Amino acid sequence: MTMIKSSKGSAKITAALILIGNELLSGRTQDANLSHLALRLSEIGVGLVEARVIPDVEDTIIATVNELRERVTYVFTTGGIGPTHDDITAECIAKAFDVPLIRHPEAERRLLDYFDSRGVEVNEARLRMANTPEGAELIANQISVAPGFCIGNVYVMAGVPKVMQVMVEEILPRLRHGAPITSATVVCDLPEGTVATGLREIQSKYSDLTIGSYPGKANTGYRVSLVVRGAESEEVAAAAADIESLVRDLGGNVETS
Amino acid sequence: MTMIKSSKGSAKITAALILIGNELLSGRTQDANLSHLALRLSEIGVGLVEARVIPDVEDTIIATVNELRERVTYVFTTGGIGPTHDDITAECIAKAFDVPLIRHPEAERRLLDYFDSRGVEVNEARLRMANTPEGAELIANQISVAPGFCIGNVYVMAGVPKVMQVMVEEILPRLRHGAPITSATVVCDLPEGTVATGLREIQSKYSDLTIGSYPGKANTGYRVSLVVRGAESEEVAAAAADIESLVRDLGGNVETS
Repeated sequence: MTMIKSSKGSAKITAALILIGNELLSGRTQDANLSHLALRLSEIGVGLVEARVIPDVEDTIIATVNELRERVTYVFTTGGIGPTHDDITAECIAKAFDVPLIRHPEAERRLLDYFDSRGVEVNEARLRMANTPEGAELIANQISVAPGFCIGNVYVMAGVPKVMQVMVEEILPRLRHGAPITSATVVCDLPEGTVATGLREIQSKYSDLTIGSYPGKANTGYRVSLVVRGAESEEVAAAAADIESLVRDLGGNVETS
Repeated sequence: MTMIKSSKGSAKITAALILIGNELLSGRTQDANLSHLALRLSEIGVGLVEARVIPDVEDTIIATVNELRERVTYVFTTGGIGPTHDDITAECIAKAFDVPLIRHPEAERRLLDYFDSRGVEVNEARLRMANTPEGAELIANQISVAPGFCIGNVYVMAGVPKVMQVMVEEILPRLRHGAPITSATVVCDLPEGTVATGLREIQSKYSDLTIGSYPGKANTGYRVSLVVRGAESEEVAAAAADIESLVRDLGGNVETS
């Protein structure tokens, strides 16, 4: 698959997210990182084009990283960078890039300072959190110190949502920014099957935009969210106005929020 | 990648889930279907080995379905089977299997009965929900009638969680069942870095099991969940007992639940 191009010929900035962890595939843990990253990336004009949830299995991690880093501008990973035996992300990324796994001196210094200040025993398991692929740059962790890292176009973050979120804020200024993606939502009380034909015509009229229809819960009757997304905010507003007219022409009401 | 084999030589029953929808990649919608399916599959001994979140893009859906259906026993999809223009899953699955998309007579009959009983206008958009690849079998929808379907080893479900959940219950009896996966969780008040070395030794001793370590929130101090999973419940219990001993030997407490 090749890089996605926008209609104006410039390369779109794309991203993929790899969620690493058996606990996500067993159902034990409900992911919260995908939607957080997606929202923050939208705001800086980076389009998340795929996410994968994979287990703590070396071959799978290596193959997934190597496939996706060829296809998108930025790859993000979450999970697997703690001190226990099931934390194998750093060594897998080193293998994916075919470089040695090293003890990163600055990461080790940060950890030793932290352990010292808290009176935490220094042991080999804890120092594993200073291991990175050779050539990686650190991603600071303002919460629990053990850093993430980036190498090439791959950004490796913690799985714990609070830690992941501070790492995202460290990373965003380092990325190329695109046109922020604008969205407009028209909420109506008509069923999807009633608006579908008119909505398809509006989508055809605005081929640079994506229009989605999402049925939701209502206490009584229907409540459908019609969502327009695109880089050009005036075009998004025009399409949303067309959708509002469609709803009213069909006898429906638009919810104002 | 080849079918995963268990240590006893019999083929493990594996599954992959494809979550289809732009709204999941924009951050608008938080997925709830992955963890539900994962838990239900665990109970019947089917191992979910990967999940992918992909947009409403034809080429991506076709390529993802065709890649995964070769690699696992069962592929599940959610999303994209409603009446609007962004609901393209059925036509993509037909293309993936290289069969025509047809109006399924039984699906159409169920929809027409439902529309008739509710006084809902019949239109082409609504009848699109009766389209399936030729040769597909229906998956009943006890909530909103519009069915899912299966073809080959691919099971196509709605994205709305309540509807998805009733479809899962329709599907489970049709699947081959494996040995249910048993899990045991030891919650302790030691940090991961303290238990890591001993935990690695226990993982080495029980190579048929997977042991995961998950830090959680505690009001005071540490709260780490050490989770053992495997098909043999006696082995799972033995490993959990070893972990409890490890925690106590290290001066920690085990939370009883």
